[in-house]
Amino acid sequence: MDHDLDLYAEGPALTAALVDVSSVSGEEGPLADAIERALRRLPHLRVTRHGNTLVARTGLGKQERVVLAGHIDTVPHAGNFPSQWDPERVRLTGVGTSDMKAGVAVQLRLAATLPEPNRDVTYVFYECEEVDVARNGLFLLSRNAPELLIADFAVLLEPSGGVVEGGCQGTLRAAITATGARAHTARSWMGKNAIHEAAAILDILRSWEPRKPVIDGLEYHEGLNAVAISGGVAGNVVPDECVVTVNYRFAPDRGEEEAQSYIRDLFAAWPVEILDSAPGAKPGLTAGPAADFVKAVGGGPRAKLGWTDVARFAELGIPAVNYGPGISEIAHTPGEYVEAAPIVAAEQALRTWLTVSS
Amino acid sequence: MDHDLDLYAEGPALTAALVDVSSVSGEEGPLADAIERALRRLPHLRVTRHGNTLVARTGLGKQERVVLAGHIDTVPHAGNFPSQWDPERVRLTGVGTSDMKAGVAVQLRLAATLPEPNRDVTYVFYECEEVDVARNGLFLLSRNAPELLIADFAVLLEPSGGVVEGGCQGTLRAAITATGARAHTARSWMGKNAIHEAAAILDILRSWEPRKPVIDGLEYHEGLNAVAISGGVAGNVVPDECVVTVNYRFAPDRGEEEAQSYIRDLFAAWPVEILDSAPGAKPGLTAGPAADFVKAVGGGPRAKLGWTDVARFAELGIPAVNYGPGISEIAHTPGEYVEAAPIVAAEQALRTWLTVSS
Repeated sequence: MDHDLDLYAEGPALTAALVDVSSVSGEEGPLADAIERALRRLPHLRVTRHGNTLVARTGLGKQERVVLAGHIDTVPHAGNFPSQWDPERVRLTGVGTSDMKAGVAVQLRLAATLPEPNRDVTYVFYECEEVDVARNGLFLLSRNAPELLIADFAVLLEPSGGVVEGGCQGTLRAAITATGARAHTARSWMGKNAIHEAAAILDILRSWEPRKPVIDGLEYHEGLNAVAISGGVAGNVVPDECVVTVNYRFAPDRGEEEAQSYIRDLFAAWPVEILDSAPGAKPGLTAGPAADFVKAVGGGPRAKLGWTDVARFAELGIPAVNYGPGISEIAHTPGEYVEAAPIVAAEQALRTWLTVSS
Repeated sequence: MDHDLDLYAEGPALTAALVDVSSVSGEEGPLADAIERALRRLPHLRVTRHGNTLVARTGLGKQERVVLAGHIDTVPHAGNFPSQWDPERVRLTGVGTSDMKAGVAVQLRLAATLPEPNRDVTYVFYECEEVDVARNGLFLLSRNAPELLIADFAVLLEPSGGVVEGGCQGTLRAAITATGARAHTARSWMGKNAIHEAAAILDILRSWEPRKPVIDGLEYHEGLNAVAISGGVAGNVVPDECVVTVNYRFAPDRGEEEAQSYIRDLFAAWPVEILDSAPGAKPGLTAGPAADFVKAVGGGPRAKLGWTDVARFAELGIPAVNYGPGISEIAHTPGEYVEAAPIVAAEQALRTWLTVSS
C-alpha cells in the first residue's frame, strides 16, 4: 500500500499520519517511500536515498549549513498502534509519537514550507536508530557518505521536552573478574572464594564519587554502576570466578581512551575487559550557529546525560544538540504520547531561527 | 543376565566382581538381585528387601547390636567401567571402587564368614545414595521400617582411607536478597544499586571467623561461603535485586534450627530464605560399642567435615562413624581406584572388633 503524506497539514495531524505508517526498526521501507515521494515533489531540495535513509538539501550557497536530523524507526508495537487522538487532553497517543515522529513531522513541515531559509539546511531522515549501531542509518551515512553530513551545526529532533540538550555523555561497559580457587564447601579453606573477593570491586563502586564537570556552561553528572554480577559453580563448591560488569557514563570532557584508562586504573587489581564504548560529545553551544540557535529557541540549555546520535556529529567535528517536542521519559512505554502544543512550538522556534535571526 | 557373587573370594577380587555389575543410581536392580541371592544362601542371616535395599540380620540375642551399612549405587560411568586390575600398583581402578564397592565387599565378606559374631550385626546394602535424598534407600528405610535399623552403634563403610571419621557437620543453604530501585544508568542517582548493596553481605562473609569446636575429642571446622551471586537487568539499567546464595557448614554441637537462626541473625539486615538444610551428627565415640570400635580399629579418629548418611543414624539416636577402605578424595573422578591392602586391612579390623574385643 502506498501512503501519501500531506506536508502542509498541521504538525499534530502530520505526526498522526507518520505514526500510522508502521516503521519498526528494519521495516521502515513503506515510510521511507512515502517520505521520499513527498520530498521529491519539493523543487528546492536535492534528495538522495541510502537504504531507508533519506537526505534532502537546499543548495542556496549560504555561508552556513545546518542539519536537522531524525530517525524514522520505532521500537516494536505494544498495543499502541495505530495512533489515537485524545481531544480532551490535546495529545496523540501511539508508538513513536514522542520518539520521534513528532520531530520528523517538524522536519518535514520545515522542509516543505521553507524554500529559502537563511542558512542552507540538510534534512536527514534515517533508519534503525533503535537497534544495534551497525544498522544505524546515521552511522552508515557517516561512514559511506560523510560529505552529505558536512555542516556547521546539527539539531537532532529527539524528544527533549522542548529544551535544548547539549552534547552527551559517553558510555562504556567493562567486565571485571575476581578469581579464586575451587574447593568443596565442607573444606572451604582449601580454596579461595572469588565471590568474596568481588566484594573489593563492589567497595570501590560504593565509595566512588561522581564527577560533575561544567562544560560550556552545562553541568554533566557521571555515573559508575555495576549492571551485572555473576558467580557460582554448585551449591557445595567454593567458586573460582566472579564477574562484575560495570557501566561508566562519562562527561564529554573525557575522551573514550581516557575513560577506558580511568576504569582500568580504578580496577587495576583485577583483569578488566572493555566490552564496548561510545564517546561523548561536548555541547559546543558558545559560538557560531549553535549560539544563534540557543538564542533563537530560548530557555536555558541543559546537559544531555544519556548517549545519543549527537555523538556521531561530534565525531565528524560538527557541534550538535537534541531539541524536539517529544517527552523522553515516556519513550518506549506502551502509553507513549506527544502533546500537540509542543509540536507547534518546536516548529515555530526552528522556523524563527531559520528565517529571522542572524 | 544373572550375576553370581562368590563371597568367599578375597576382598579385592570380590570388589572387582561388585564393580563389574553396573549399578548407577536408579539402576541397582541386577546388583541388588545378586547380593540378595548370595545373602539368602547364608542360614545365619534373616534377609529382607525394600526396593533395591537389602537388610540382613543375625539373631543371636546378644546384648548389643551394631549396623554395618553401605550404598550399592555409583555415580554415572566416566569411561571407567568395567574395573581394571593394576598388578604393578596393586590397585583396582573403576567407577565405584573407592565409593564404595570396596566397603560393600568387606560387609559381604564379614556377613558370609562370621556366623557367630560377638555382637548381633545388621548388614544394610542400600540404593540411591548418590542422588537426591528422597530416593536414598537408607532414608526410606529410616522412614518406612526404622525397626530394622535399631542398634547401639553403626559403621558406614564410606571411603575414609581406613581412618575412623566421627560424626558429620550439618549443612544449609540460604538466599540473601539485597534490593534497590531501577533507574537508567545515565541518571543512576535516581535509583539504588542492589549489586552495590550486596557488598555489605559479602563484607560479612569476608570477615566471618569460623568456629572450630572440639566435640568428643574431635575438632570440627565450620565454613560459610557464597556459592552463587546473581544480579543485573540490562547493560544500561541500575539493578534492583541481587541475590547471594550462601552455604553454611556447621559443627554438630549446633542443631539445624539453631544454625538457621544463626544465619538469619547474621544477615538480619536482609530477607533470608532457607533453601535447604540437613543436620550434623555428634561423633559419640566416648562410650559403649563406639569406644570399643575405636579401640579395636586403632588410630586416632578424626572429625568428618562433609555431610554423610551418618546423620541419618544420629536422627534415630544411634551413634555412627564412617570407616572404609576407599579414598574419598578421588571418589567421583574418572580415575577412581582403590588399593588392595586397605580392603584387607579394613576387613581384618572389623573382624577383630566383631570377634575378639569386649
